[in-house]
Parts: sequence; structure tokens; C-alpha cells
Amino acid sequence: MNKVEKNIKFELTDLLINQVIDLVDNNQNTLLLTKLNELHHADIAEILEELNVDQSIYIIKLLESDKTSEILMELDEDFREQILNNLSPKEIAKEIEELDTDDATDIISELSVEKQKKVISKIIDAEHKADIKELLKYDEDSAGGLMAKELVKVNENWTVTKCVKEMRIQAIEVTRVHSIYVVDDKDKLIGRLSLKDLLVANPRSNIKSVYIPKVDSVNVHDEAESVANIMQKYDLEAIPVVNDKNILLGRITIDDIVDLIKEEAEKDYQLAAGILQDVDVDDTIVQLSRARLPWLLLGLLGGIGAAIVMGAFDEILAKHQILFYFTPLIAAMAGNVGVQSSAIIVQGLANDDIRGSVNNRLIKETFLSILNGFILSVILFLFIMFSGEEYLVALAISISLVIVIIVAGIIGTFIPLFLDKRGIDPAIATGPFITTSNDIFGILIYFYIAKLILPI
Amino acid sequence: MNKVEKNIKFELTDLLINQVIDLVDNNQNTLLLTKLNELHHADIAEILEELNVDQSIYIIKLLESDKTSEILMELDEDFREQILNNLSPKEIAKEIEELDTDDATDIISELSVEKQKKVISKIIDAEHKADIKELLKYDEDSAGGLMAKELVKVNENWTVTKCVKEMRIQAIEVTRVHSIYVVDDKDKLIGRLSLKDLLVANPRSNIKSVYIPKVDSVNVHDEAESVANIMQKYDLEAIPVVNDKNILLGRITIDDIVDLIKEEAEKDYQLAAGILQDVDVDDTIVQLSRARLPWLLLGLLGGIGAAIVMGAFDEILAKHQILFYFTPLIAAMAGNVGVQSSAIIVQGLANDDIRGSVNNRLIKETFLSILNGFILSVILFLFIMFSGEEYLVALAISISLVIVIIVAGIIGTFIPLFLDKRGIDPAIATGPFITTSNDIFGILIYFYIAKLILPI
Repeated sequence: MNKVEKNIKFELTDLLINQVIDLVDNNQNTLLLTKLNELHHADIAEILEELNVDQSIYIIKLLESDKTSEILMELDEDFREQILNNLSPKEIAKEIEELDTDDATDIISELSVEKQKKVISKIIDAEHKADIKELLKYDEDSAGGLMAKELVKVNENWTVTKCVKEMRIQAIEVTRVHSIYVVDDKDKLIGRLSLKDLLVANPRSNIKSVYIPKVDSVNVHDEAESVANIMQKYDLEAIPVVNDKNILLGRITIDDIVDLIKEEAEKDYQLAAGILQDVDVDDTIVQLSRARLPWLLLGLLGGIGAAIVMGAFDEILAKHQILFYFTPLIAAMAGNVGVQSSAIIVQGLANDDIRGSVNNRLIKETFLSILNGFILSVILFLFIMFSGEEYLVALAISISLVIVIIVAGIIGTFIPLFLDKRGIDPAIATGPFITTSNDIFGILIYFYIAKLILPI
Repeated sequence: MNKVEKNIKFELTDLLINQVIDLVDNNQNTLLLTKLNELHHADIAEILEELNVDQSIYIIKLLESDKTSEILMELDEDFREQILNNLSPKEIAKEIEELDTDDATDIISELSVEKQKKVISKIIDAEHKADIKELLKYDEDSAGGLMAKELVKVNENWTVTKCVKEMRIQAIEVTRVHSIYVVDDKDKLIGRLSLKDLLVANPRSNIKSVYIPKVDSVNVHDEAESVANIMQKYDLEAIPVVNDKNILLGRITIDDIVDLIKEEAEKDYQLAAGILQDVDVDDTIVQLSRARLPWLLLGLLGGIGAAIVMGAFDEILAKHQILFYFTPLIAAMAGNVGVQSSAIIVQGLANDDIRGSVNNRLIKETFLSILNGFILSVILFLFIMFSGEEYLVALAISISLVIVIIVAGIIGTFIPLFLDKRGIDPAIATGPFITTSNDIFGILIYFYIAKLILPI
């Protein structure tokens, strides 16, 4: 019972890491094996990521390949690459043999084309080899790129008894049996059976008479994100993948979808925050800098652009210095409104929630901007009047604010929709990209309106 | 086969919505039933959200409650509330009877305490009623708030034959059998069996001799987010929930975790974009305004604060008008850096990835800021020099930029860590909150340093 608690409440402590390092450095293999074999492969992966590459390889070579293959799958991609670079094609092939075809393909696809060939040639199991070769052909972001070849399928013409016997053989290969897929003689997907149905069914009956002829499936070329949306919407734990002729090719399981949803969400979040590459809190300063610097450079260019814009209005600025004081306010509001409106569109696009035309979206955002802009401008107008400025100055700044908010909302709505239509990930539109362009547009509009309203 | 394709590729078209509205308005019940019974409940829910409340209720009352209960679960919370307000406690109880205990509890917990009592009193199934009453006690964001009482459990002392017989009875209640939990005579969780194991096992053997004594579980009071992290990390599709005495209380399934992960990610994304309430692209302008206006008001106050700060430096500004031109740049960079650093911390906290002390994080962020700040400042310095300004002015602005970036990085790192320690969701720190505070701090530092370096 105590063991149960320990397993699920694994905590990566400095003490544990140092113990493992000590055991590695002193070649205490027996103790090391005892310690590591208690742990789940996902926990061992967390430990390895705290060690250096040599120490990690020492552990990988020490443990059995059924365990190390799973550990490799859990590692961060960069770190896995470093480790694979230090393993021979034969050693990698041995790990690959232990993995399901989807995971095996993910790892092989990270290797150079040359090394891929060498590794594949060393795979002993002919079926596994053929399956991986097939899976390598599909796009990484498609259903084919997510699916595994391992599944349990039965022929409609079998009896339940034969079905159970055949399944016992197939089930050994398959980690988790979700559904039993029913195919016809041409291998076309025609229905499904759950293990529960089989458990409750009369053993003497015929598959044809007990199977459920309704089965959801996705096409092998469907986008990965749309598969994720479907599996979430319909609460599916596995979905079969077919080709255009409805031939059963593989299946996708929910654990891969969970990872996909989380990765997509993290990527979008990071993009919105102006972080360009996938980084996490433990990455090196140089990695973090490389991920963050490009957006900051864009921001710098935007700031220089804003300075140039302001320089063009030096006449009106010399006369009304107060305009300067509200430049950061205008720029910030333009940025905030743009980020808000783009975020709603980006999420709507990701969830496939956006119906109706682009024009409808823009009209709605405009009305919303007028509402919010009006409320905010009244407050700003009152503040400026209250601080003893001229009526005309307060009016010019407040009117600018409404117009800037409207334009910012339109830009924030339009850009992600436009990028999406062009096939570009709209998530790159949020964050610094919108903020920077809105800063410049905002300031330009602000001074232009001030120039129109105020006397020089 | 064609039907398969249609089912999974459901598209919500205006044509379909108008057809349904027509059928409702003309009381064409038979045609309506034919049309709707072809569809998955999740698709019907999407249609209902496009209708008004009366039309939706018409459909809810027309369909069978095994279908309508599932439709209700899929509806947006606001819309569901409106529909439930129009149903009697007895009608709601009838829906509740059809749902698994976790979903039933979710719906009941949305009602007023008074209506909750009335609905519960109308539930006929005594076990279902007792289960729901128990589940209502747990915190919504805990394992208890996620779990369902429906599960398949067997006693270690049973034979495989008795086990299969008992399971056939239990399995009728359970939508999906993931694992069979093995308990002792005191109902303590001691292990598990998979259906696959049972399928492969010899029917004459004893459960004690075939079950796997290793089983992951979570405590009923564990946080929902930590359960999600555990299920993702260990690729679990279901996890049993126990109390402090290890008594088996319920189980959590991956479909609820998928929804939780997606909701959390969307909430964090919206918070980072300055959207305060959960809204989506189809909400009304007033709903969207209410979600967006609070952060814009904060931005407005920040902008006014920045104006006041600048007013305090009017002497130096009168002398060096160029300082004005770079205020938006300084403010934008302070905001960008703050958002970047806070986003990395917020994600690290959400993934439970942050080890080591707050000080270590701050030191790392400082070094990173020095690196990025130095690169950006050199570029800015060269630009200002190139545009013919004085050496000292270029130096003052560039040095300010480095220091502003360092301070912005520290604030962005510190605030989410501080909020997390205080038990506040750190996600509120990203976005406008950080941007606004960094704007003011940035401008303050900028002018202060300019005043120190430049002659008045």
C-alpha cells in the first residue's frame, strides 16, 4: 500500500539526483538497478534530464531495453537527440523493437535520413520494420503521423469463440485494447465490438450478429488537430484510421491526443507571450535567449518606428507637450485591445468554432470596440479635464483613444483570420506581433487626429 | 460506410440550423425526431446553442432522456443554466438518473441549494441518490470533484469465474471498463486486473493469484490539476480514487481530464491576453465587453500613471525632447520582457516543473536579461548615434534600456512565483497586469537614469 502512494507521488529531489549520480560515478550497478527498477519509466526520464549525457547513456546501457525504450520516449526531444547520437544503429534498433509502431516512428523520424536507413536495416522483426516504413511516409501533423499499427481486428465471418482465440494472440502485441475493430474480407472497416460486449456476449454466437455496425473513424490524411478536436468532442479513447477506400490502417489512442493538446496549448501560449521556440523553465540561458530575442528585436524595431513617427509630428508636439504624456497610454491600449481580440479569434479557430464571414467578425468587433472605447474615453476625458487641461486637448486625446481602440480591434481580428486563410498558424499573430504593429498604428492615428483638432 | 463518414465529419451549417428551427416552429415532431436521432448528442448540443431557449427546451422535451441528459452535459454552462431554469425538479431528476454520477453531480452543483434539494429528492434510484450526495461534498477542483462512483471492482477472494459473473452485472452500469479494481474484504484497494488479463487468464484460477498488486491511485483530496499531470505523465486512461485509509471511493477517466486540460489551457491563454471571464467567439457583445473591459481599465489607469510619472520629469523633457520619442519603445520592451518571463514561470508552475529556490530563478532571469538587454541596447545605441544625436543621449537611452529589461525580467519572474506561494492562480500575472506595471516602472527608470546622465 505504501508502495502505491510512493509511485504516484514521485518527487524529483536533489537528494535522489545526487544519489543516482554517485552510483553512476562509482559504477555501483547492482545498487543502481535496484534503485531505478523501483521507479516508473517516466520518473527515470525526469532523473536523466538532470544528469549529463554520459551519465544518462551509462544508465540507458545498464537497464533492459523494454524499460529504456519507454524512457527514451519520455525524454525532451533535444536531450533524446544527444543520447541517440551516442548510440549505434544496432542499439537504437533494439530500443525501437520494444516500442509500439507510433512511438518507434516518432523516434526514427528524428534521425538523419542516413541513420534512419541504418537503424531500419537492423530491425529484426519484419512486420515491425514494414509498419515503421509505412508510418514514416505520413505527415507528422496528420492522422497517419499519430496512428499506431497495433490494434485488434476480427473478421465479421468469425464466430465469437474463434474471435476470442484470435484476439488472445493479437492482444499480446497491443498494450491496451480499447475496441475490437470488425472488418470484412477486404479489410474494410465495418464496425466495432468492445471487450465489454464480448464479455457479455454468448460465446456461441457469430460476430456478424453481435458487432455494432456504427464506428467513427478518421482518414489517414486528416489533420492531427482536427483528430484531437473530434476525439475530445465525442469523448473517444481510441479511433480507427482508414484510407480513402475505408481500409483499416491503424488506430490513434487518447494518450497521444492528450500530449498533442497540451503541446499545442503550450505552443500557442508561448507564441502569445513572444517566445518563439519550445522552451521550458529548465533550459539554458542561451536556449532561452534564442527563443526570446527575435520577438524583442521586433519590439525594438517597432519602438524605433514609433520614434520615427513621433519625430514627424514634432511641430504639434512642440506646441502641446501634454500629447507626449499620453503616448504610452495610447500605445498600451492599442496593444491590449489587439491582443484581446486576436486571442479570441485564435482560440475560436483552434476549436473550429468560427462560423460566418470575416465581415461579420469585423463588424462585431467594431461595435464591441465602440462600446469599450466610449467608456474608456469618457473616463480619460474627465481625468484630463480634471487635471486642468484645455477642453480641446482633452477632446483630441479622448477621440483618438476611441478610434485607436476601434482600429486595434479590427487589426487584431483581421490578422489571425487572414493568416489562417493563408494556411499560416494564426497563433503567431498574437503577442508581440500585434502589440508592435498596433503600437505604431496607434501612435500614428493619435498624432494625426491631434493635428486635425488642435491649433498649431 | 457513408454514414460513418457523415457522423465524424459533422458540420454545423446555417442550412441545418434553419431546418431544425422550421421543424420546431411548425411542431413537425416526427420529422424532427428522424433528423435529430441521426446525430450524435454532442452535435445536437451544438445545434441547440444556435437556437433560443424556448426552441431548445422544445427539443429537450421531445427527445428521450437518455439522449437529452448527454446533450445537457455538452452545452455551454450559461446556456444549460437557462434551460435548467425552465425545467421542473422532477424533469431535471429524470435527466440526472441517466447520467454517470460525476456528470450528474456537475449539473446538480450548478443549481441553487434549494433546487438541489428538490431535485435530489426526486431521484428514484437510491444508490444513485446516495452517490450524488456524497460527490457533492467534495471540492470541485479536487480528485473527489472529478471522480465517478461507477467502477468495476472485484474481491481478491473470488474465483475468475465468479469475477466474470459479477462483472457482467457491474459492467452494465459502467460506460467504459478500463481496469478492474481488486479490493480486500475491507474495500481497500490492493491491485488491478485489465479486461485483457481476464481474457487471457485461465477461468479456473483465483483472483488472488492473477491480479497485479501494483496500482496507481490518487487521494480524494488531491488537486484536480495534479491528477491531470499524473494521468498525462503516466499515460493513464483511468485512475482509482481512495481516501486516507486507502478505501476505494471512485475513479477518474481520461475524458474528463482532456476537458480539464483544455479548459485550463484556454483560461490561462485568455488571462494572458487580458480576458477575464471565460468567453468564446460567439458570445454577445455585452458578455465580451464585460470580460475585456476590466483589464482595459487597468491599462487606462496604468497609462494615466505613466502620464503622471512623465509630468514629474518635465524639466529634463523640455531640454531633451528626444527622450519622449523613445518612451513607447522603453514601455513596449518592459512589457514584452515581463510577459515572456512570466509566461515561462506560469507554464513551469502549471507543469510542476519548477525546482529550486526563487532566488535561483531570479538570478537566471537576470543573467538572461543582461544578455538580451546588452544585444538590444547596442543596436539601439547605434541607431540613435546614426541618426545624428549626441553621444551622451544615445548612451543614456541605451543604458536605461538594459536596466529596464533587467527589472522587467525580475518583476515578470517574481510576481507569478509570489502569487503561487500565496495560493493565487499565477496566470493572472501574465498579460495586462505585468504589461501595465512594467510600463510604469520602465518609464520611471528611464527618466530617472536620463536625469542622472544628461545635463539639465
